[in-house]
Amino acid sequence: MGLYEEIDGFFNPKTVALIGASTKPGKIGYVILENLLEFPGKVYPIHPKAEEILGLKCYHSVDEIPEKIDLAIIAIRSTDVPKTIRKLADMGTKNFVIISGGFKELGGEFEDIEAQITKIAKEKRVRIIGPNCIGIFDPRTNIRSFFQPRSRMLLPKPGSVSILTQSGTYGIILLEWSAMDHLGVSKFVSYGNKADVDEADLLLYLKDEPNTKVIGIYLEGLKDGKKFFEAAKEITKVKPVIVLRGGNTEKAKKAVKSHTGFLGGGGRIYRDVFRQAGVILARNLEDLYDMIKALAKQPPAKGNRIAMMSNGAGLMVQAVDAIEYEGMELAEFADETIERLKKKLPSYAIISNPLDLTGSATDDDYYNAIEIVLDDPNTDIILVFFVHQDSPVTPSIIDKLAELNQKARKKGKPILVGASGGPYTIELNRRTEEIGIPTYPISERIVRAAWVLYKWGQRKNTE
Amino acid sequence: MGLYEEIDGFFNPKTVALIGASTKPGKIGYVILENLLEFPGKVYPIHPKAEEILGLKCYHSVDEIPEKIDLAIIAIRSTDVPKTIRKLADMGTKNFVIISGGFKELGGEFEDIEAQITKIAKEKRVRIIGPNCIGIFDPRTNIRSFFQPRSRMLLPKPGSVSILTQSGTYGIILLEWSAMDHLGVSKFVSYGNKADVDEADLLLYLKDEPNTKVIGIYLEGLKDGKKFFEAAKEITKVKPVIVLRGGNTEKAKKAVKSHTGFLGGGGRIYRDVFRQAGVILARNLEDLYDMIKALAKQPPAKGNRIAMMSNGAGLMVQAVDAIEYEGMELAEFADETIERLKKKLPSYAIISNPLDLTGSATDDDYYNAIEIVLDDPNTDIILVFFVHQDSPVTPSIIDKLAELNQKARKKGKPILVGASGGPYTIELNRRTEEIGIPTYPISERIVRAAWVLYKWGQRKNTE
Repeated sequence: MGLYEEIDGFFNPKTVALIGASTKPGKIGYVILENLLEFPGKVYPIHPKAEEILGLKCYHSVDEIPEKIDLAIIAIRSTDVPKTIRKLADMGTKNFVIISGGFKELGGEFEDIEAQITKIAKEKRVRIIGPNCIGIFDPRTNIRSFFQPRSRMLLPKPGSVSILTQSGTYGIILLEWSAMDHLGVSKFVSYGNKADVDEADLLLYLKDEPNTKVIGIYLEGLKDGKKFFEAAKEITKVKPVIVLRGGNTEKAKKAVKSHTGFLGGGGRIYRDVFRQAGVILARNLEDLYDMIKALAKQPPAKGNRIAMMSNGAGLMVQAVDAIEYEGMELAEFADETIERLKKKLPSYAIISNPLDLTGSATDDDYYNAIEIVLDDPNTDIILVFFVHQDSPVTPSIIDKLAELNQKARKKGKPILVGASGGPYTIELNRRTEEIGIPTYPISERIVRAAWVLYKWGQRKNTE
Repeated sequence: MGLYEEIDGFFNPKTVALIGASTKPGKIGYVILENLLEFPGKVYPIHPKAEEILGLKCYHSVDEIPEKIDLAIIAIRSTDVPKTIRKLADMGTKNFVIISGGFKELGGEFEDIEAQITKIAKEKRVRIIGPNCIGIFDPRTNIRSFFQPRSRMLLPKPGSVSILTQSGTYGIILLEWSAMDHLGVSKFVSYGNKADVDEADLLLYLKDEPNTKVIGIYLEGLKDGKKFFEAAKEITKVKPVIVLRGGNTEKAKKAVKSHTGFLGGGGRIYRDVFRQAGVILARNLEDLYDMIKALAKQPPAKGNRIAMMSNGAGLMVQAVDAIEYEGMELAEFADETIERLKKKLPSYAIISNPLDLTGSATDDDYYNAIEIVLDDPNTDIILVFFVHQDSPVTPSIIDKLAELNQKARKKGKPILVGASGGPYTIELNRRTEEIGIPTYPISERIVRAAWVLYKWGQRKNTE
């Protein structure tokens, strides 16, 4: 069995056992079971005494399970984990997710327990995710090992983004942001201490995983830098990989050590190695999210020449500043474009790039302006800013944007939207996201998203 | 009449006239009138033909108005503005807000019209805000000259933040963000081309305005740098002023020119002058907002030593990095603090700073940890991170935070909260904001907010 099948086993089990099911609502072993109720395959809760939890028949030990288990989710004391894995592996289980903490991150004897797990994985030829993590999620098969109650956490639909994260917290945040923005997810792995499966294994898997188009990673440290480098170099030839590193400073490295038992992911050497591997580095969690959203929803850009328009110029002034800081270019409109804009737009519009449609701008003005600017051979990326609070624009603009997005796609030109405000604007942004155009709250963030589309376009063209 | 009374007249009129009322729903002159319906004083719509709009009796010209107008809001063609102001000034009106565009930003003859307005203000001893702006808002008196419909725009309650902005768009965004976060506003002025009243006048006014505690400014250019510098130097002795500058690069300066008719606010000279005046510079619009929110809701910090805790360590790892980047310090807990934490917290807690309460943390664990850390003489600022999605913490934590916030205030130690996610977490963040603790979505932003509280604390101590 190759790496692809080994890892794919996590996301396509037919039978799942939860070792450490709990009878107490709110407890980790109870919430995981609640989440597993949504999984369509067969679920076996293991509890030493209970007969039934949440309507599912319980088994008192793994020996009692009547059939082969494809995936075992483990949420018991760390000291009991090695023998449980050994037994299940002997019974044919190939994939394990260890949610429990109490391993390497505590040091001393607990580090030894984790070493045993790594050894078992090799000896028994099984694959293990974790320990000390929230595990896996696949919106297509609905397998999910999370201990966060459904009522507290939105989940995204199936899509093209895959997320790998050493921190469960960051994973939860990225999934909820994705769900709110109609950004679909393919595979999600929170791998914690990575006793066995690491980022490199997952990257090689995602390289061939057909639904994955973009990969976002949060990591705090690497066990095997060379292995990561080689894997990243391969995948970034075909799919963009955005990495956010935690623990760059000396003090943070200490904090990382007691978090997942690693040295931090920081420093200049790391940075250079990542860049050589074709990885794009994020500045913070919002930046990571902004970039994967752009890459998942819009095509790579053919160049760095940006056209922009707005019914309120404030956002554009700062976008022009950001364009210079990020090494992008303000497109120079062709003469024909200027002529067409003058003909089509009312006299209040200030025809230039940035294109100020002014507060009097209507839906039609936006439609005409975007259509004309898309035709210009001197433009590569279109940024459309809205002050949705101004009354001449209406919610019907979303339908027009959907149509223009199709036209833009044919030309290979990304469209990004910038708009901010309260509930009314938030709702229109959600609808804009739903039709496949990503939205950004401030100028600096939309220009950065444009930058990553340009960057990925360049990388694709040189391969 | 002194400057204070002159400017205060904008916010405390008894009678208001709208020159340029419209009968057509959605038009600027109609929406402004809709907004003025919420103003408790007397409102006179001026329209050349209409008898009544929105239930209000119309006057066909300013001559027909039966009493003295305190504040005139003007939304007519720029060419008709000078004579209208002259007439009203002769009739006793002291305060004018010109919403209309079509002045300096268009150049040429339109620049001359604006020059006439500046001249009238001086000659007639009246004060004028605008042109080319959305004007004023005071949540206490409910005077509001906006042309954004109420249904599209949330408005904040009365409070301690005053906002000055050259861009109406940025003003709208800041007001809506404030409203969502229960951040109250004192005075709001979008001043556009500032033909008469400028930032310096407004700063000197706000210095003495009793409700204003914090000032946020977005500006694209200064007419009189020295005047601004002198005013800023005065007010920053008593109240913090955060400035976001647009148009820093050469290309952006061009964009600014056609926006409000100014040269951009950029470059190193500007930056140094601002700093010498005691102004704190924001990096972008979110940064401006994050900082004014912290300053309005929490006390200045006595030092830069940060204590932090979380039930998910991911956010803390990056916060430690950010602390180093911003020149802050990770507090070293006193021995007594360590002892008390060990005694009060369960064995799963990893006692250090950052304090990892782990995913098992309960409301009581948070309460105990915050209370103990507040007592430590080595801590100046407390950052509390939440993964609200983890079930052992409950929404009751908000009540506990409210209680701890009172204790912290007595000690002069700010508390800031970091939490991110979907609707469940957003709702808890809103409730956290409601009890007066500001919330931030990512580590870099919460540490920056801590920084500004430290910075302002330092400034206050040196005066």
